[in-house]
Amino acid sequence: MSKTQKIEIKCPTPVWEFDSITIGHGGGGRLTQELLRKGVFSLLDNDWLREQGDAATIKLEGNIAFSTDSFVVSPVIFPGGNIGDLAVNGTVNDLAVSGAKPMYLSLSFILEEGLEMKLFSRILNSIREACESAGVKVITGDTKVVEKGKGDQIFINTTGLGVMHPKARLGMKRVKNGDAIVISGPLARHGVTIMSKRNGLEFETSLESDTRPLHQLCLNLINTFGSEIHLMRDPTRGGVATVLNEIAEQTGLGIQLIEKKLPIEDEVAGACEMLGLDPLYVANEGLFVAIVDRAKSKDCLDLIHKLEPGSMATQIGEITMEHPGKVVLKSTIGGRRVLAKATGELLPRIC
Amino acid sequence: MSKTQKIEIKCPTPVWEFDSITIGHGGGGRLTQELLRKGVFSLLDNDWLREQGDAATIKLEGNIAFSTDSFVVSPVIFPGGNIGDLAVNGTVNDLAVSGAKPMYLSLSFILEEGLEMKLFSRILNSIREACESAGVKVITGDTKVVEKGKGDQIFINTTGLGVMHPKARLGMKRVKNGDAIVISGPLARHGVTIMSKRNGLEFETSLESDTRPLHQLCLNLINTFGSEIHLMRDPTRGGVATVLNEIAEQTGLGIQLIEKKLPIEDEVAGACEMLGLDPLYVANEGLFVAIVDRAKSKDCLDLIHKLEPGSMATQIGEITMEHPGKVVLKSTIGGRRVLAKATGELLPRIC
Repeated sequence: MSKTQKIEIKCPTPVWEFDSITIGHGGGGRLTQELLRKGVFSLLDNDWLREQGDAATIKLEGNIAFSTDSFVVSPVIFPGGNIGDLAVNGTVNDLAVSGAKPMYLSLSFILEEGLEMKLFSRILNSIREACESAGVKVITGDTKVVEKGKGDQIFINTTGLGVMHPKARLGMKRVKNGDAIVISGPLARHGVTIMSKRNGLEFETSLESDTRPLHQLCLNLINTFGSEIHLMRDPTRGGVATVLNEIAEQTGLGIQLIEKKLPIEDEVAGACEMLGLDPLYVANEGLFVAIVDRAKSKDCLDLIHKLEPGSMATQIGEITMEHPGKVVLKSTIGGRRVLAKATGELLPRIC
Repeated sequence: MSKTQKIEIKCPTPVWEFDSITIGHGGGGRLTQELLRKGVFSLLDNDWLREQGDAATIKLEGNIAFSTDSFVVSPVIFPGGNIGDLAVNGTVNDLAVSGAKPMYLSLSFILEEGLEMKLFSRILNSIREACESAGVKVITGDTKVVEKGKGDQIFINTTGLGVMHPKARLGMKRVKNGDAIVISGPLARHGVTIMSKRNGLEFETSLESDTRPLHQLCLNLINTFGSEIHLMRDPTRGGVATVLNEIAEQTGLGIQLIEKKLPIEDEVAGACEMLGLDPLYVANEGLFVAIVDRAKSKDCLDLIHKLEPGSMATQIGEITMEHPGKVVLKSTIGGRRVLAKATGELLPRIC
C-alpha cells in the first residue's frame, strides 16, 4: 500500500490522449512519439533516452555480461509484482548470477491493441521503481503494437549489460565432486503465486511472488569468496530441479539432494499440494542456487543470513561422483528418487 | 532460388520431435532444450551458445553502441525476406547508422503454439545467413511460447552491441544550416512489398523488400569523411518523412526536399498509387538518410556509387533556416507543401 502511494506522489500517471492502445501507437509517427514522451521517456528519463537515437552509446571497462529475456507472464499483474518489475528483475538476476554488476537495460514492448493506458502506466511505474532498486538504467528501447487477438496485453523484452566482477570465476567447468549446493531462500514462491492466481485461489493465500533483484547478494558472495563460488544460477522456468539437471548433464557429475533440507514454506507446500505441483519444478524469481567449495559452504550461508536476516538460505545437497548426469533426491523416509528433466507442459507463461 | 539451395546444402532442416510448437516448448524443460539444441544452437553454433549460461561474456574496447528492436511483421514471409533476416538486419542497421560496427546480438523468440516447425526452421536459417552476411554473432537468447490466439506465429527481439567507429561524430547537435540530405537508394520498397502481399497484389509486381545490412556502406562513409557526416538514420517505420520530421523537430531547423530528386522506382510508384500510400511515409529496411556537410555531398555520393554500382543514391534536399521545425517539399510543378508528422494508423506491423 505504502509502495503504491510512494509511486503516485513521485510519478503522477501520465495523461494520455487515448484510454487504450491503438494500432496507430505502433506506427512510428505522432502517436508513438506521444506514448514515448509522456510515458517511457518521462518516467525513465536520462540523457540516452533524451537523445532518441537508433542506439545508445556507452563505455564499459573489463569483461561485459550480456543477457536477454522476453516476458509473457499471464496474468500481467500478480500478488507481489507485475510483468514490469519482473522484466527488470529477471534480466538483472541473469546478469547477477553470471557474476556481473547490472548496469544498463534495453526495453522493448509488444503491446496489444486495446491495452488500457492505465495498466500500461502502472507497468511503466513498476519498471521505473525496479530499475531504481537494481541501480540500472534503461537507455534504449522499442515499442510495437499488434492487433487485438494477436498478442496478450503486453509482452516485454529486456536485454541487459553488466560488468563482470573481477573476482568472478564461474562456469560449468568449475563445478567439482564434493561441492556444496546452496540455495538462497525458500522454493517455488513465484510459480505458485502465478498458478494460484490463474486458478482463482489467490484469496485463499497471502502468497506473493519472490520477484526482486539479487545482484547485491550475488556480488557480495563473489567479492568475499571469489573463486570459491563455482557456479550460480537462478532457477526460474522449470525450477530448481531443471537447473540442477542442466548442471548434472553438462558437467557429467551427479547431484544429491536431501529432501528434509529443502526450504519450503508451509503455505507454498499447501498450495503446491492443492495445485498438484512439485515445488522443485516450480519457477522462482528471487532465488539463486550456488555451487560452492564445500569448505566455504557454512561461511557463504553465514554471509547470506547476515545480509538477509531471517532468510531460509541453506545447503540442500552436494555434487557427487555417484549417478553421473543425474539428480537424485534422498527422501525424508530414506528412499531415493531420480528427479527427471521436466518437459514443461504444466506451467506455461510463468515469466 | 540458388539462395535457398545453398542454405539447404549447408544446413539441413532439423528433424524435430513435433510438427509444430507446443506449450511444452516454452516450459524451460526437455522440449525447450530440444528446440534449442536441434535448432538455435546447431544453426548458430558458437562458444557462447555452447556454454548455455544465463549471460554471455565478452570484451569490447572503446565506445559501445547498444540497440534493441522487436519484430512483429505480418506476414512473416514476404518477397525478399522474412522476419528472421529482417530481425538481424534491423538491429544491425540501427547500430550501423549510429556509427558502430555491429558485433553481437541477443535473440529472443515469442512463439505461438501451433507454429509449424518447418516455418521456424526456415526463419532460423535466414537468421543464420543474415548473421553471416553482417558479420555478427548471436551469443545469448531466450524462447517463450504463448497459447494459440495469444500471439501471431512468431515475434522476434534482437538487441545488438557494436563498437563505435573512432571517427564517428554523429548526433542531432551536429546538424547545421546548409547541410545536404543524402539518401542511399530508392524509397519505400520494404513497406510497399509488405502491403502488396497483405493486399494480395504480390503477383502483380516483382517488388522485393530492401532488407539488407548497411554497415559496410555506413562505416565506409564514416571512415572516409569522419566528422563531415553529421547524422545518419534508417527510415524504417514512418518512412523518410517521419525521420526528417524528427530531425527538424529536435534540431529546430527546417528541411527542404526537392520532389523531382526523390529516387522512386516506377514499380514502387505504381504500387503506392494502387494502395493509396505516399512513398515518403512508407517503411524502408535497407536504406539510410545521411546529413552531411554540403561541401562533401558529391564525394559522399561518389563513394556510395562506387561501393554499390547502379545505386540510386542522391541528394534529396538540404537543411535550412527557413520554416524551422518543418519539412517542406518543393514539388515538381513548383508548389510547396509541408510534410506533416504521420500518425501511423495506416501501416501496422510493417517490421
